[in-house]
Amino acid sequence: MDKLNTLKIVKIGGNVIDNPQGLSSFLTVFSSIKGPKILVHGGGKSASALAHQMGLEVKMIDGRRITDAETLDLITMVYAGKINKSIVAQLQSIGCNSIGFTGADGNTISSKKRPVSTVDYGFVGDVKNVETSTLKLLLDQEICPVFCAITHDKNGQLLNTNADTIASELAIAFYSQFEVELYFCFEKKGVLKDVNDDTSVIETITKSSYQKLVDAQLIFSGMLPKLNNCFYALDHRVSKVCIGSPEMLLNPEAIFTTLIIQ
Amino acid sequence: MDKLNTLKIVKIGGNVIDNPQGLSSFLTVFSSIKGPKILVHGGGKSASALAHQMGLEVKMIDGRRITDAETLDLITMVYAGKINKSIVAQLQSIGCNSIGFTGADGNTISSKKRPVSTVDYGFVGDVKNVETSTLKLLLDQEICPVFCAITHDKNGQLLNTNADTIASELAIAFYSQFEVELYFCFEKKGVLKDVNDDTSVIETITKSSYQKLVDAQLIFSGMLPKLNNCFYALDHRVSKVCIGSPEMLLNPEAIFTTLIIQ
Repeated sequence: MDKLNTLKIVKIGGNVIDNPQGLSSFLTVFSSIKGPKILVHGGGKSASALAHQMGLEVKMIDGRRITDAETLDLITMVYAGKINKSIVAQLQSIGCNSIGFTGADGNTISSKKRPVSTVDYGFVGDVKNVETSTLKLLLDQEICPVFCAITHDKNGQLLNTNADTIASELAIAFYSQFEVELYFCFEKKGVLKDVNDDTSVIETITKSSYQKLVDAQLIFSGMLPKLNNCFYALDHRVSKVCIGSPEMLLNPEAIFTTLIIQ
Repeated sequence: MDKLNTLKIVKIGGNVIDNPQGLSSFLTVFSSIKGPKILVHGGGKSASALAHQMGLEVKMIDGRRITDAETLDLITMVYAGKINKSIVAQLQSIGCNSIGFTGADGNTISSKKRPVSTVDYGFVGDVKNVETSTLKLLLDQEICPVFCAITHDKNGQLLNTNADTIASELAIAFYSQFEVELYFCFEKKGVLKDVNDDTSVIETITKSSYQKLVDAQLIFSGMLPKLNNCFYALDHRVSKVCIGSPEMLLNPEAIFTTLIIQ
């Protein structure tokens, strides 16, 4: 088989979005990536700030936000409206043609409302299917899809969906059409051995070394689902998964964490 | 020249959007239109309701909203987020594949911030250019673009733009690729001779009969810019411009107003 073209999927979290200057320099780096690329963004603090301004109560159970109907409206306004369109307009201004997406747009990502068990998370969706055809058409025209963390259930209901999961599921869906590389950008340079020491980046994590790090309780809290999500992508033929600061996208000398199966 | 395929561009106003049942039945009608189509939607009352909830002051001069930075954020959230994505999700649920757009998405509609004269309208844009190539690509795949009334200046700034104007400018931009028909849907059955009599629909208005209606003060206030906008489209090779209730889209017996050059 011929070597496939490489598709880079980059996810940025709230910390990049909440800092206008940081976002602007990230977008400059992102726009200079050659070849097909997709951006996935999380929410940032604007949703909570708006909720506060509107007098809405932010409902959390076990540290997780509950998405009731009002919160879904708010998230749709902030993620798909304010943040997504601001990113698209900024990318256009630096010559990177892009189109903003939720999973409803082009029917690209459909999901199923999470069933109620001990907790009712509300309008939260777990990804069921990714349709790549429209996205491929746009990528072939050098247009960059920019995804916010909202999907739909195909019955008219929008659903709040984890942005890391969206990035992974997009990466997995494209494996037969591209060599897919998945980059999770956040405020640290990578996965740290010592959370208080920014220079303690673990440069390579294999599945077996990951288990040892978990057992030694060096990886915990929010980093656990993030890394599980990364290995899930690797297990489904994504070529490369990296975690680090946006610098990793361009600088060949940058230090960051690469995850490999073995 | 071969007869071109027909593109239907349909604009709906706030009155359709503000009524969930009305919107749902409109979308059912819209989705059953055969062939390429584009939907353009206005804002509705949600923006004012949200402004009120957020404690923002709605600034008006001579009955026109002033779009300061906070208002632009709000409009972007409501128009491009809440309303646009809700329409896209509903269209998907009835089998009409669609993608939501602002003018920034795909660099489809760029505009120029309106110069400050006696009034500073703030972040309001007058359309400068429509790029049809990406939209044509999607229309050829039977995907329906859904536009909200926001454009961009190509320098990263989103701008509030009149939805009627967006519909007309899209129609004009496509004249060389399609026979373009433009439909303005609103709460009345058409342009009325007597504003208090819903059965007084003027079925045909020509440019010269329009002038007579204006002189007789039978057309006034909001209807004036709307009709000017319609004739502007006709003057720029749009094949057909109609004003009426959504019924005109499907029912061959429906009564509505058709504008013609002579």
